[in-house]
Amino acid sequence: MFTLGIDYGTNSVRALVVRTADGAELGTGIVNYPSGTQGVLLDPKDHHLARQNPADHLFGLEKSIKLALAQAKKTKGFDARKVVGLGVDTTGSSPIPVDAANTPLALHKKWSGNLAAHCWLWKDHTSVKEAAEITALAARIRPHYIAKCGNTYSSEWFWSKILHCRRTAPAVFKAAHSWVELADWIPSVLAGITDPTAVKRGVCCAGHKALYAADWGGLPDKEFLAQLDPALADLRDRLYSEAHDATASAGNLCPVWAKKLGLPAGIPIAIGEMDVHYGAIGSGVCEGTLVKVIGTSTCDCGVVSAEKTVADIPGICGIVKGSILPGYYGLEAGQSAVGDIFKWFVEGVLGDPKLHATLTAEAAKLKPGQSGLLALDWNNGNRTILVDPLLTGLLLGQTLYTTRAEIYRALLEATAFGARAIIERFREYGVPIDRVVCAGGIAEKNPLLMQIYADVTGCTMLVAGSSQACALGSAVSAAVLAGAHPDFATAQKKMSRLKPGVAYKPEAAHQKVYHQLYGLYRQLHDAFGGVNSSADLSGVMKSLLALKMPA
Amino acid sequence: MFTLGIDYGTNSVRALVVRTADGAELGTGIVNYPSGTQGVLLDPKDHHLARQNPADHLFGLEKSIKLALAQAKKTKGFDARKVVGLGVDTTGSSPIPVDAANTPLALHKKWSGNLAAHCWLWKDHTSVKEAAEITALAARIRPHYIAKCGNTYSSEWFWSKILHCRRTAPAVFKAAHSWVELADWIPSVLAGITDPTAVKRGVCCAGHKALYAADWGGLPDKEFLAQLDPALADLRDRLYSEAHDATASAGNLCPVWAKKLGLPAGIPIAIGEMDVHYGAIGSGVCEGTLVKVIGTSTCDCGVVSAEKTVADIPGICGIVKGSILPGYYGLEAGQSAVGDIFKWFVEGVLGDPKLHATLTAEAAKLKPGQSGLLALDWNNGNRTILVDPLLTGLLLGQTLYTTRAEIYRALLEATAFGARAIIERFREYGVPIDRVVCAGGIAEKNPLLMQIYADVTGCTMLVAGSSQACALGSAVSAAVLAGAHPDFATAQKKMSRLKPGVAYKPEAAHQKVYHQLYGLYRQLHDAFGGVNSSADLSGVMKSLLALKMPA
Repeated sequence: MFTLGIDYGTNSVRALVVRTADGAELGTGIVNYPSGTQGVLLDPKDHHLARQNPADHLFGLEKSIKLALAQAKKTKGFDARKVVGLGVDTTGSSPIPVDAANTPLALHKKWSGNLAAHCWLWKDHTSVKEAAEITALAARIRPHYIAKCGNTYSSEWFWSKILHCRRTAPAVFKAAHSWVELADWIPSVLAGITDPTAVKRGVCCAGHKALYAADWGGLPDKEFLAQLDPALADLRDRLYSEAHDATASAGNLCPVWAKKLGLPAGIPIAIGEMDVHYGAIGSGVCEGTLVKVIGTSTCDCGVVSAEKTVADIPGICGIVKGSILPGYYGLEAGQSAVGDIFKWFVEGVLGDPKLHATLTAEAAKLKPGQSGLLALDWNNGNRTILVDPLLTGLLLGQTLYTTRAEIYRALLEATAFGARAIIERFREYGVPIDRVVCAGGIAEKNPLLMQIYADVTGCTMLVAGSSQACALGSAVSAAVLAGAHPDFATAQKKMSRLKPGVAYKPEAAHQKVYHQLYGLYRQLHDAFGGVNSSADLSGVMKSLLALKMPA
Repeated sequence: MFTLGIDYGTNSVRALVVRTADGAELGTGIVNYPSGTQGVLLDPKDHHLARQNPADHLFGLEKSIKLALAQAKKTKGFDARKVVGLGVDTTGSSPIPVDAANTPLALHKKWSGNLAAHCWLWKDHTSVKEAAEITALAARIRPHYIAKCGNTYSSEWFWSKILHCRRTAPAVFKAAHSWVELADWIPSVLAGITDPTAVKRGVCCAGHKALYAADWGGLPDKEFLAQLDPALADLRDRLYSEAHDATASAGNLCPVWAKKLGLPAGIPIAIGEMDVHYGAIGSGVCEGTLVKVIGTSTCDCGVVSAEKTVADIPGICGIVKGSILPGYYGLEAGQSAVGDIFKWFVEGVLGDPKLHATLTAEAAKLKPGQSGLLALDWNNGNRTILVDPLLTGLLLGQTLYTTRAEIYRALLEATAFGARAIIERFREYGVPIDRVVCAGGIAEKNPLLMQIYADVTGCTMLVAGSSQACALGSAVSAAVLAGAHPDFATAQKKMSRLKPGVAYKPEAAHQKVYHQLYGLYRQLHDAFGGVNSSADLSGVMKSLLALKMPA
């Protein structure tokens, strides 16, 4: 038996054919989105804007699956008729305005030129003001709404984006019958669902991102929404009243798509989750194990049994029952930019993508502290633990002899310090972290970064065995849904693995220097992040110079 | 009649033949120093180290003068026999260890491979600890020694460097019979002086840099020096007891060099001054006029009549009678790196010198505040007003879309903010600044920088008429000494001029934005510079974003 996992990333979509018995990956198809700048629709006048074209999603869906199946067919024993289920994961919160037939507005000629009619990509930060407004209103009248998301509602999430659309693109808002998360919309397309209110919604996206909780009767109540805007209260009726964990099905493959893809009609489609959540499953997440999916940004996922009580953790953006594994609270944290920062420096500033390898090699020769540099990893704001998109990057310690390799390494280190701040916050609130498993291309291909993460956090860094951990997690979910395995724990054990022989262990001498550098990082973090409003930073540059030139 | 001005910069030496009647520049010879990295001997293990090879100084002396004379000969009426005097200016404090015959140790084969035996270039910052020690000792037992140099003795100066040599290269220290500033040594070479105690010393270098003042009997007393190191007290006897302003002569051209250069033997040689001090004279410095010599670093020079009382100004590194113009207090401030910062970013980080022009053109299209960036101009420490070499650069406000041109402009702006901090400090202490004249290649060739300086400081920026303002000032001094003009005021009026038709006036709209950015700059400046030890920086990034995206 086989299942298919389909993973929608920021710049491309990939499909993966997996054998349910042992997790063998028989075929992969990767398709770059044809529109925009590397798949992202941008506005040169507003760097906060990031949208995606739903036409790219459909184009990539068909093409990536066909490519994956074509490759799988080269393996003996594979037969498309033996595919028993599909799972889908996507970036999120990435809501799409759709018409009454569940068609994204952007697919209509009338709206295709309007950026507001497209998919509002996770990293779109245009709705900062609306997020602040929702935070303030909730703090005043519904504090429990935001207690599980670090007491701060984000501009990256569902309601902020929709409210911003209502304010800045009212015609689009009016034309939208409903809004569907990309993670729910793709399964609904495969299932042939043509009514947005019939789309099965995942609790993973609904959870804190749409302020959904069974405890308070689903989505935020109308009174709350009406205080933001009466039109939001009206919209509530055209959204959904129930959201599901991965024990539920999103539907069954409809005949049209079955024919298009050459797959059996009627096979079950797993509930959609966000990429990193299924990525966590594909990387073996369980209680005590933190999974870091390291890509353009980083998402950190952990789980705690739903039978335990989990405290609200300030600055941790999501604690939602069933958002990752059924029967567990899913805990989600993250860094708004990681790979994106390196990419920005190498491609945006230095202007030469080929330099990644050179700089990595040169940076690897430097010792901790040797550059005298310190950076903040906030080029795209801070998601955890400050939950503030209105923060920006910082680089400090430059001399007239500072090299590009030193800057590159300082940026790697900055993301490691950000990672440590997250781990420390989890532990402060009693979430056990015994093991860290990293997934994603950067984790696989950048031993320097992994070693720095080990040295900075003091944790051994393990690496997920699949280079398609998110797609694999989707395939695991499909396998459980299709009955190929009795439960997630069994399916994970059979289908996921660690990269053999790879474990980055902290080196004591490096740890010592990084411990001092982290102290300086926290000084900057707290001063610029608003945690400390009477900071003494007079020693920061001198301490860096002292670390740079030990006696 | 003609005079010759010879100007020793950081990377090259230039000689200039000037007609005394009207300041016409008839010939120029520029020679790059052959040794090291663009003329500077570096130590890859210690970015604080910067030395220069005295052999380069001699090579450049002969070659630059010959080139200048050869060019001048093309002008009718010029005759080398009508050259009536020479003037020399150099970087400083750049002391050289010499033997008993006034020969630099580095010119002996035995010492040529030892970096400590070479000329200790102005920007050498290896003696940070010794500077702190001298500051502390003076504060304790001789506070008046440092009252005129902002209460902080610098690692760039004479005694710090010699004490560091004593500590780290004792063999060189022992072999040195005396130490001579480059500005005094070159005139002594031309005058054929072979005894270091007979070298005429200029008060310009001696002033605060060697803690010389007639008021306290010349150089620091032996008791003070002995507390630093008994060997320094011994050295005092082999230095000098008197230093001179520009009314004195450094000697007369000796027959050997007269023959070598084809100039009349016996013509007077002006007392040596530091490049920027003669540059100020060549740019028309007078009471009320601030001269900014903008190059790798910036020096700001002003004068106040010696008949007035000048208060000590915290952080202003030199207030010395006669250090620029006879009869006036010379006031000196500066920024440790200006052009060097742009050069570092374009050549060191981006790795392409050709980008200077492109980036300038792109940066010119940006509006104040548009980049969202803010930088500190401290890549080489802060000379004025913090007097602290142990400070480093900072760049803040980066997003994932920040461009290299935006960073380039932020660096230009950072140096403008540093310039404003200096002007404000002068004015706070009652030094009038009615006019600003800028000299140096950057002032001439970078209208964008000049406009930013006008917009940031609120002062109209004028530009010196000579592109060789320092060499011209040396030639002016030689002309006065030779009797071609009765005094400096007359000589300046006849021989120096402004660049015609050039005046960068502040634009009100830009001034307004820059005033806000300067406020943020001062927040960072004071927080990292140790002025404010309980800083609230939580608003800095948000304020920059607000300026970047007005409503």
